[in-house]
Amino acid sequence: MTEERVEFRVSPEHYKHWRVSCDGPVATLVMDVDEQGGLVPGYELKLNSYDLGVDIELYDAVQRLRFEHPEVRTVVITSGKPKIFCAGANIRMLAASPHGWKVNFCKFTNETRNGIEDATANSGQTYLAAVNGTASGGGYELALACEHIMLVDDRSSAVSLPELPLLGVLPGTGGLTRVSDKRHVRRDLADYFSTKAEGIGGKKAVQWRLVDEAVPRPRWDEAVAERAAELAGRSNRPEGAAGVPLTPLGKTRDDDAITYSCVSAKLNRDAGSVDITIEGPQADPPGDIAEARSADFWPLAVTRELDDLILDLRTNEAELGTWVFRTEGDPARVLAHDELLLASSGDWFASEVLHYLKRTLRRLDVTSRSLIAVIEPGSCFAGSLLELALAADRSFQLAGVFEDEDPDAEPATVTLGDINAGPLTMSNGLTRLQTRFWGDEAGYEAAGKRLGAALEAEDAADLGLITFAPDDIDWDEEIRIATEERASFSPDALTGLEANYRFAGPETMETKIFGRLSAWQNWIFNRPSASGADGALRRFGTGQRAVFDRKRV
Amino acid sequence: MTEERVEFRVSPEHYKHWRVSCDGPVATLVMDVDEQGGLVPGYELKLNSYDLGVDIELYDAVQRLRFEHPEVRTVVITSGKPKIFCAGANIRMLAASPHGWKVNFCKFTNETRNGIEDATANSGQTYLAAVNGTASGGGYELALACEHIMLVDDRSSAVSLPELPLLGVLPGTGGLTRVSDKRHVRRDLADYFSTKAEGIGGKKAVQWRLVDEAVPRPRWDEAVAERAAELAGRSNRPEGAAGVPLTPLGKTRDDDAITYSCVSAKLNRDAGSVDITIEGPQADPPGDIAEARSADFWPLAVTRELDDLILDLRTNEAELGTWVFRTEGDPARVLAHDELLLASSGDWFASEVLHYLKRTLRRLDVTSRSLIAVIEPGSCFAGSLLELALAADRSFQLAGVFEDEDPDAEPATVTLGDINAGPLTMSNGLTRLQTRFWGDEAGYEAAGKRLGAALEAEDAADLGLITFAPDDIDWDEEIRIATEERASFSPDALTGLEANYRFAGPETMETKIFGRLSAWQNWIFNRPSASGADGALRRFGTGQRAVFDRKRV
Repeated sequence: MTEERVEFRVSPEHYKHWRVSCDGPVATLVMDVDEQGGLVPGYELKLNSYDLGVDIELYDAVQRLRFEHPEVRTVVITSGKPKIFCAGANIRMLAASPHGWKVNFCKFTNETRNGIEDATANSGQTYLAAVNGTASGGGYELALACEHIMLVDDRSSAVSLPELPLLGVLPGTGGLTRVSDKRHVRRDLADYFSTKAEGIGGKKAVQWRLVDEAVPRPRWDEAVAERAAELAGRSNRPEGAAGVPLTPLGKTRDDDAITYSCVSAKLNRDAGSVDITIEGPQADPPGDIAEARSADFWPLAVTRELDDLILDLRTNEAELGTWVFRTEGDPARVLAHDELLLASSGDWFASEVLHYLKRTLRRLDVTSRSLIAVIEPGSCFAGSLLELALAADRSFQLAGVFEDEDPDAEPATVTLGDINAGPLTMSNGLTRLQTRFWGDEAGYEAAGKRLGAALEAEDAADLGLITFAPDDIDWDEEIRIATEERASFSPDALTGLEANYRFAGPETMETKIFGRLSAWQNWIFNRPSASGADGALRRFGTGQRAVFDRKRV
Repeated sequence: MTEERVEFRVSPEHYKHWRVSCDGPVATLVMDVDEQGGLVPGYELKLNSYDLGVDIELYDAVQRLRFEHPEVRTVVITSGKPKIFCAGANIRMLAASPHGWKVNFCKFTNETRNGIEDATANSGQTYLAAVNGTASGGGYELALACEHIMLVDDRSSAVSLPELPLLGVLPGTGGLTRVSDKRHVRRDLADYFSTKAEGIGGKKAVQWRLVDEAVPRPRWDEAVAERAAELAGRSNRPEGAAGVPLTPLGKTRDDDAITYSCVSAKLNRDAGSVDITIEGPQADPPGDIAEARSADFWPLAVTRELDDLILDLRTNEAELGTWVFRTEGDPARVLAHDELLLASSGDWFASEVLHYLKRTLRRLDVTSRSLIAVIEPGSCFAGSLLELALAADRSFQLAGVFEDEDPDAEPATVTLGDINAGPLTMSNGLTRLQTRFWGDEAGYEAAGKRLGAALEAEDAADLGLITFAPDDIDWDEEIRIATEERASFSPDALTGLEANYRFAGPETMETKIFGRLSAWQNWIFNRPSASGADGALRRFGTGQRAVFDRKRV
C-alpha cells in the first residue's frame, strides 16, 4: 500500500481528524475527518470514514486522556459532520489495500476499541457514544466499544452493519461479537440487522438493544450533557490531581535499527528476525509514587517504547517474522519498580501504568510474529519483564555461564514477582502464568512457591517457566537453529499455530474478536468473492454487481 | 473433486478400511486402509492414510457400537499395519482437492472425533488409542480424540503433528486445541512439538503429556488388554441388553429430491435453496421404552434421516445455500415421544437416542448454510422439532391462517417442551434456548413460564421464540424476499456471519475447534503459501521446496 513507513507517534496539536476538548469531568472527542488527509494517496475520506491515520490519532487521544487528564470521568465521542456520525473504514482504501494491510489495520483498530473498553472498565473514564447522525459499519462498531450509545431519533439516522450486503465481508472491528456478547442482541435479530444495509434507527434500535437511547434532535444536546454528567458521577477518578504529560518519545529509526531510551531493536533482514533488547531501570525507584509521576518513570517509559516498537515493526516490517527478546539490567530494580506500582494500588497513576503495560503485553500476544526469549547472564527477566518470556512461544535460558567470555559472571536467572500473579492479565482473563499451567494446578502451585527466588536455568526448566536450558557449548547453535527453522516455515501457518497455542483455556469477548471473528474475516478477505477482481470489495461503487462463487464452503 | 455424489450410508459388511470385532465388553476397531480403496481416483491411501471414505466407515462404526452393542464398554482403536498407526489425511488427496472439499472433509472428520468423545463422556464406551506404530498428523489427532493414549515404546514409533513443517498448514482435526485444552501440554512445548516433523516418542511423550503411557513392545498386547479391561470396569453400560440394529435407511435420491420415511427435501437449483420437511410421528409412542427399541422408533428414525440428509446436502450440494425447514404433524405426538425419552432417563437406548439427536442438531449448527424455519398451520414445531426453529438463523410464523386456502384451520403454534431445557445442548454447552437469551435472563425466564403452551405467532414473537410473524397477506412475499436476498449475498460472508452469531456466550473445546481453529485453518488453506501452485501442499513429495510469501499477515 505504501512504501513510506507508518509512524504512530502523534500529538493533539497535529491531529487532522479529531478535536479534543475537556470541560471539567467531561471530555469530548469530535470526529471530523479531513477528506484530503488520508495516510496514503488514492482515496478521499468522505462521510467521516477512516483509515489507519485517523485511528492512530484516536488511539493517541484515548491514551492521553488517561494519563494527561485525571479529571476526566466521561468521554463523549461524537461527530463534527452534519447527519453522519461515521461511515466506517474507507472502502476505497480497503479495496486498494493488500491483504496484510487490511488484517493489520483491523488488528490495530480492534486494539484501540478494546482500549476504550479498558478505560471504561478500569480507569473511571466511561465512554459515551453520542451518535448524532448515521453510524454505519466501523462507525457503529466505534459506538459499540462505548459503554452507552445514544442515537439521534430523526427518522433518518440509523445504526447499521452493511458490510455483508454491500461489501461481501464481515464487520472487521468486533461488531458481530459485541452485538451478540456485549449488547445481547438476539441472534436472529442480529442476523437480520447485519444483512439490512440501511440499518435500524429510532425506537426499534432501542427495542432490539442496538442502542441504549433514541433521543429527538431538539432534546439532543441537553440529553447528552445530562447522560455524560450522570456517568461521570459514577467514577472513582481522583479529585484535583495533576496530569502526567506524555512527552514526545525519543526514537531514532533507520533501516537497520530502532532505538529508544531503554528499548532498542536490531533488524536482521537476511535472517528475517529482530533482536529486541529491553534495558532495566538504571536506578532504584523513588520512595513514593507521587515522585514517580512523569513520563520518565521507567515502567511507563519502557511500556511506551515497547508499544511503539510493536506497532512500528508490525506495520512496517512484515517480513521480519521472528522477534527475539533480551533484557539487560538488575532484576532487583525491576522488581522494586513493580513493587512500587503494586503498593500504590489506590493511586490513579500507578493504576494507569499497570493497565497500559497490560494492554501492551496483550498487543504482543496477538502479534503475528514468532516470539523467542533469550535469557543470558546480565539479563533481568524478573517480574514485569518476565512477562516477555512468558509471552514468548519459546524461551532459552543459559545453564551456567559463557565459560570463554566471562567465567566469573553470575548465571542467568528468572524471577517471579507478585506482578506475575495478578494485574497483567491476557485477553483471556488469565495471567500468562495461569495460561501456561492451564489444567496443571500442581505445576502452577509449584511455581508460585518459588516467588521471589532468582531461578537458574535448571530450576526454571524444572518448574516449567522456560522451555530449554542449553549450556554454553550448545547455546549459539540451538538459538540459531530455532531462529532459522522458524524462518523456513510457512508464515501463515505459524500465525495460525501461535494464535491457537497462545490462548489456552477460557475465551472472552476479546479473544473471540481476535480468534473466531478475525480468523473468519481474514478468510473472507482472502477469497475471490470479496477481494477478487470481480469481488464485492472491488466492485463497490462501480455500479457493477459483484460476482460470487455460489458454492458454500 | 468428484462429479459423483458421496453416499454416507455404509454398513460393516461392506467396510474396506476397518475391521470391527467385539469380545465381551471390549470392541476393537482395526484401521487397515485399503490403499486402492480411495473414494476418488488419483491417489493411493498409503501408510494407513485416510480420505473421506475411510472416515465415513469410522463414523458408521462409532454409531453402531452405541446402538447395536450395549455390551461394549471400551473401544480400542488400533492399526492393522506394521509400524504405522495412521499417517493422517492423505496429502495427495488434500493437494488435489478444491478448497470447499477440504473444509467439508475436515468438518466431518471433526464431528466424528467429537462423536468419539461423546461416546466416552455419555455412553459408557471409553475409547482407548492403542498406538502401535507411528501416529502422525490426523493419525495423532485420532488418538487425541480417545480418552487414553498408549504408545508403543520401541525407539521408532512417535506421535507427531508435522502439518506445519511439512505442509504449511495446521492440523485440521482439532489437534492444536486438544493438545492445549484437553491434554494440557504446556504452550511452549506444544509449539516445539508442532514444528518438529519427526515427532516425539517414548518417555518424553509421556512427560510432555502427549500420550498417557509408553509401553515396550513385548508387554504391549497384555498392557492394552489390561487397560481396556480397567476402563471397561468404570462403565455404566447395561448388563445383558440386546442391541438395536441400525437397519438400512430407506432413501430415494435424484437431482431434484431426497426422500426418506419421515424426512424429505426438495432441491430448488434456480433459487439455490432446499425445502426440507420433517413429518411428526404418525402414532402415539409406545407406553414403555422397552417396546420402542428399534430403528423404526420415530425419534431415532427422524434423527438418522436428518443426519444423512445434512451430510448429503453439505457434501453434494454446495450451491444450495439456504435450507428452509418445515414440519408437518401433531405437536402433541412429538411432545409425547420426547416425554417418553425424558422419562426413561436410566435407559441406555433412550439415552443414546437423545445424544444422537443432540449430535445431529450440533451438526446443523456448524453447517455453512443459511437456515430458515417456516412455521405454518399443520406444523409441529414442538419440543425436539422446535429445536430446528431455534437452530435457524431466522424463523417466520404465520399470524392467523391462510384465509383463502383454509380459513378454518388451526393457527400455527410453537410449543416449548422439557426437552428444550436440557439434554439437547449446543457445542457451547448451553441449550439453544439459553444461547438465544444469552445475557437476557428475564427473556429466558418469561419463555420458560410458557412451557407446554401452544403459542400462536404473536405470543411467540413477543416471547422472542421466533423472528417474524407476518399475516397471510405478507407471508409469501416475506419468505420469498428472505430467501432471494440470502441467495444474493456473498456465500463466504454468510458463512462467517452465521458461525459468529450462532454461538453467543461461552466457548468450549468443541466451539474452539469449529471456530478459532477451523477459521484459521480455512484461511491458511486458501493462501498461496499452502495451496498455490508453488505452495507447500502442492509441492509435498515432489522434492521441490515450497515457495512462501515471507510477509507475516
